[in-house]
Amino acid sequence: MQKKYLLSEDEMPRQWYNIQAEMPTRPLPPLNPATKEPLSAEDLYPVFAEELCRQELNYKDAWIDIPPKVLELYKYYRCTPLVRAYALEKALGTPAHIYFKNESVSPMGSHKLNSAIPQAYYCKEEGVTNVTTETGAGQWGASLSYAARMFGLEAAVYQVKISYEQKPYRKSIMQTFGAQVTPSPSMSTRAGKDILTKIPNHQGSLGTAISEAVELARTTPNCKYTLGSVLSHVTLHQTIIGLEAEKQMELAGEYPDIVIACFGGGSNFGGISFPFMRHNFCGDKKTRFIAAEPSSCPKLTRGSFRYDFGDEAGYTPLLPMFTLGHKFRPANIHAGGLRYHGAGVIVSQLLKDGFMEAVDITQLESFDAGILFAQTEGIIPAPESCHAIAATIREAKKCIETGEEKVILFNLSGHGLIDMGSYDKYFSGDLRNYELSDDEIVENLQDSIDVDSLHSDPQDC
Amino acid sequence: MQKKYLLSEDEMPRQWYNIQAEMPTRPLPPLNPATKEPLSAEDLYPVFAEELCRQELNYKDAWIDIPPKVLELYKYYRCTPLVRAYALEKALGTPAHIYFKNESVSPMGSHKLNSAIPQAYYCKEEGVTNVTTETGAGQWGASLSYAARMFGLEAAVYQVKISYEQKPYRKSIMQTFGAQVTPSPSMSTRAGKDILTKIPNHQGSLGTAISEAVELARTTPNCKYTLGSVLSHVTLHQTIIGLEAEKQMELAGEYPDIVIACFGGGSNFGGISFPFMRHNFCGDKKTRFIAAEPSSCPKLTRGSFRYDFGDEAGYTPLLPMFTLGHKFRPANIHAGGLRYHGAGVIVSQLLKDGFMEAVDITQLESFDAGILFAQTEGIIPAPESCHAIAATIREAKKCIETGEEKVILFNLSGHGLIDMGSYDKYFSGDLRNYELSDDEIVENLQDSIDVDSLHSDPQDC
Repeated sequence: MQKKYLLSEDEMPRQWYNIQAEMPTRPLPPLNPATKEPLSAEDLYPVFAEELCRQELNYKDAWIDIPPKVLELYKYYRCTPLVRAYALEKALGTPAHIYFKNESVSPMGSHKLNSAIPQAYYCKEEGVTNVTTETGAGQWGASLSYAARMFGLEAAVYQVKISYEQKPYRKSIMQTFGAQVTPSPSMSTRAGKDILTKIPNHQGSLGTAISEAVELARTTPNCKYTLGSVLSHVTLHQTIIGLEAEKQMELAGEYPDIVIACFGGGSNFGGISFPFMRHNFCGDKKTRFIAAEPSSCPKLTRGSFRYDFGDEAGYTPLLPMFTLGHKFRPANIHAGGLRYHGAGVIVSQLLKDGFMEAVDITQLESFDAGILFAQTEGIIPAPESCHAIAATIREAKKCIETGEEKVILFNLSGHGLIDMGSYDKYFSGDLRNYELSDDEIVENLQDSIDVDSLHSDPQDC
Repeated sequence: MQKKYLLSEDEMPRQWYNIQAEMPTRPLPPLNPATKEPLSAEDLYPVFAEELCRQELNYKDAWIDIPPKVLELYKYYRCTPLVRAYALEKALGTPAHIYFKNESVSPMGSHKLNSAIPQAYYCKEEGVTNVTTETGAGQWGASLSYAARMFGLEAAVYQVKISYEQKPYRKSIMQTFGAQVTPSPSMSTRAGKDILTKIPNHQGSLGTAISEAVELARTTPNCKYTLGSVLSHVTLHQTIIGLEAEKQMELAGEYPDIVIACFGGGSNFGGISFPFMRHNFCGDKKTRFIAAEPSSCPKLTRGSFRYDFGDEAGYTPLLPMFTLGHKFRPANIHAGGLRYHGAGVIVSQLLKDGFMEAVDITQLESFDAGILFAQTEGIIPAPESCHAIAATIREAKKCIETGEEKVILFNLSGHGLIDMGSYDKYFSGDLRNYELSDDEIVENLQDSIDVDSLHSDPQDC
C-alpha cells in the first residue's frame, strides 16, 4: 500500500530557496582561468542568460520569486506526489518510515524540467533565439528540448556518445520537440575535433559535451548555453522539490531524519535537501543529508576539494569543487546522469563543512535496489535514482538493527522506462562493477589547482 | 497553457458502470463454437476468474462496486488529470474547446492498469496462482505483469513477435516485474506450432498470441487467462476513465459534444465513452462518440458484423462483432495495440445501432497529429493515442469552418516514451501507409459466420 500526499495549486511554492544567502560559510567564488580573479555576474553574460548569471552569484536573497510563466508550466506536472512507501518498508521488514518524492511524473520522466523551464524562460525574456546544451543519459537534453519548444526557441544538444548509442529513445524524444542532436565528441567544434584527434574512439563524457556546447554558444549569434546540473542557479530551481516536500511532510505529520538523493552534479540532491537543511543551520533540526554517488565516479567520497574546470577543454571558469579532475573519463555505467567529474560549488562547500555526507554505490547494488523498488512500489526507477534507493535501503536496514522508526525521505528523480536497455543488460548478467585505483584518481587530479594556493581570503560572510 | 482538473480521493468513483444493463439493445450472446448455443458465465469459468465471467454476462446491474483493494491500487496513480489543451487549440486556431483525459500518468504509461489490477485481484481472491495473457505493443503485458506482482501471482505473457522485436523495452519492463515473456507465435504451444508450420516467418498477431495464452491457461493447473481489451468485463473496468472525466468536466463547467478515443478492441474507447453515452440513451444529451481506428486494420469502418472467433486458432467462443475475420493478418503498423481483427461485443452492437461512429486514420496522419500534440501540450503520445488525436484535430478543424465552440474530449490512452523507435522511423522517412483491398477484406471474412444464420431471437431486453 502507498499513501500519497499532494498540494493544491494554491499551496504550491511561489519562490525558490537560495541557500547561498544562508550558508554558514559562503562558497568560494568562481575564478577567471587566465587572471585567477573572482568572476562577477557580468563576466558570465556572454554564455548564460543574464538573470541566470545574477542568480548564480546571488549571496543576498534567500528567496527568489518564480516567474508566473514558469509557474504556469510547472503546473503541467506539479505538485509531484510525496509517497509513503509502505510496501517497500514491509518487504525490508524495517521500522523506518520511507517516503519518496516522485519526480518521475513529469512529462519527460525526471526532475530536469524544473530547471529547463526557467532557463528557457529567461533566455526568451532576454531576446535569445537559440539555446544549446550537453546531455548524458538524455534526461536533461529532453527536458531542455521540451522547454525550448514551449518558449519557441531553437535547441541544439550535444549528447555523450555512449549514451547516444545506449539510449536512442532519448534522442528521438529530443527530435520530437524539434531539437538538433549531435553525438559528442563531434567534428563540429574545435573542442570535439581536438579530443577525437587525441582519442579517436572517445566514448564521450559530460565534460567533453559541455566544451562543445559552450563553444557553440560562444560562436553562434543570439545563442546561450544552458546547463542541467552543477551550477548554483540550476540547484536553486530544483529547490521546488524540497519546498513542496516540506509542506507535504507536514501533511503526513512527519519530518525527515534523513534526506537522500543520487548525486551527479548535485542539483536533484540540493533540490530536495536545501529547503530542509536551512533548519539545520539555525540548530532547529538535525536531519542527515546523504548524497549517493556511483562507485565508479566517486568525486565526493574519493575526490579532492580543488579549483577545477567544469569541462574537459577548459572553457569554463575555475570552480571550487570536489573533483576527480576535469580530464577524468568515467566508466560506461548506465546511470549516465551521474557520470560527471565534479560536484557543484554549493554542495562542495557543504560537504567540506560537514553539513552533508556522501556514500558510494556500485552499479549492481543500484540495480538490485531499483528492482526491489519496482516490485514493491510499482515504479521502475531511472538508473540514477536507483542509487538513492540503494542508500535508502542501507539506512532502512540499519533501523532493523536499532529498532529506530527513522523517517527517511528520498528523491525519486526519474523513471527508468526509457532506460530499459540497461535493465535488460542487468538481467542478462552483462553488467559489472568498475573499480577505480587510487593511482588513477591521483593522476587525474594533477590538472586541478589547490584551493589555498589561489584563494586564501576568509570565507565568512 | 494547460488547465488541469483533478478529483480528491474522496471524490473518486467507487463503482464501475456496466452499460450492458442499460443499452437499448442487449448485445447478442457469445456462442459455444461446437453447439452454437449461447454460453453461460459458468461455461467460461475454466478460462477466466469466475467473478470476471459473471461480469462478462451481467445484463442486470448498471453499477458494480470496485473492491477496496482495487481502489487502493487505483490510488497509486488515479485520479488521472483532465486537461484543457489551450496550446493545441491555439496552434490549430480552432474555436473548439479541446480536453483530454491523461491516462499516460499511470506508472506503466497507459490506461491498461485499470483492468489489469482488478483481473489480478479477482484471480488472487479465487486462489489462482498463475496468470497468462497476450500482448501487442506490450502496454497490456506490462500492466498485467505489474498487477500480478502486486498480488503475488506468477505471470506468463505471449508478446506478438513483431512488437517483441520493435519494442524491446516493454519486454524488459515485464521482466522487471518478474514475468516470463515469450515471443508469439512460439513452439511452446500447439497453436503456435501449427501456425509456424504453415507460415514459418509469421510476425505474430494478437489473435495468435491469444490462442497461445488460452492454451497455456487450459493446460496449466491453477492458471487463468486474462485479456487486455475486447471483452465486456475489461471495458467495464475502464469506465473508471469516463466516470472520473464526467466529474472533472463538471469542474470545468462543460459537457462534451464529442468524445473520441483510439480503437483496438474497444476498452479505452468504451472506458471514456460509456459513462457519457448513458445520458444519450435517455435522450438527455446528444454527444457524438467517435472511435479512431487505423486504416490498415479497419474492422469498424470496413469490416462486417458477424459471429467470429476472438483468436486465430479458434479456441475462444464465437463472438458477435465487427470483424475483419480471425485469420486477418494486420500490417506491421507501429500502433501495435490497434492491430486486432475484431471489436468488442458491446461496441459492435452500439455501432450497429448508431450510438457511435468510427473513422479510420492512416499511420502518417497519426504521427503528424502526435508530433503537433507533443510540441504544444508537452506529452509525447503513444502511437495508438495518436489516432485519437488525429480524429480530434479533424473535428477541431471543422469547427474553424463552422465557427462552433464545440467541446471535444479525447482519451490520451498512453504516452509514447517507450515507443520512440516508432517516432524515429517516422523522422527518418521509413514509415508508410498500408492500403487494404476490398478483395482482401472479403477473403478474410469467409471464416466468420453470418449473424442471422445463428441467432434470430429478438434482442430487446
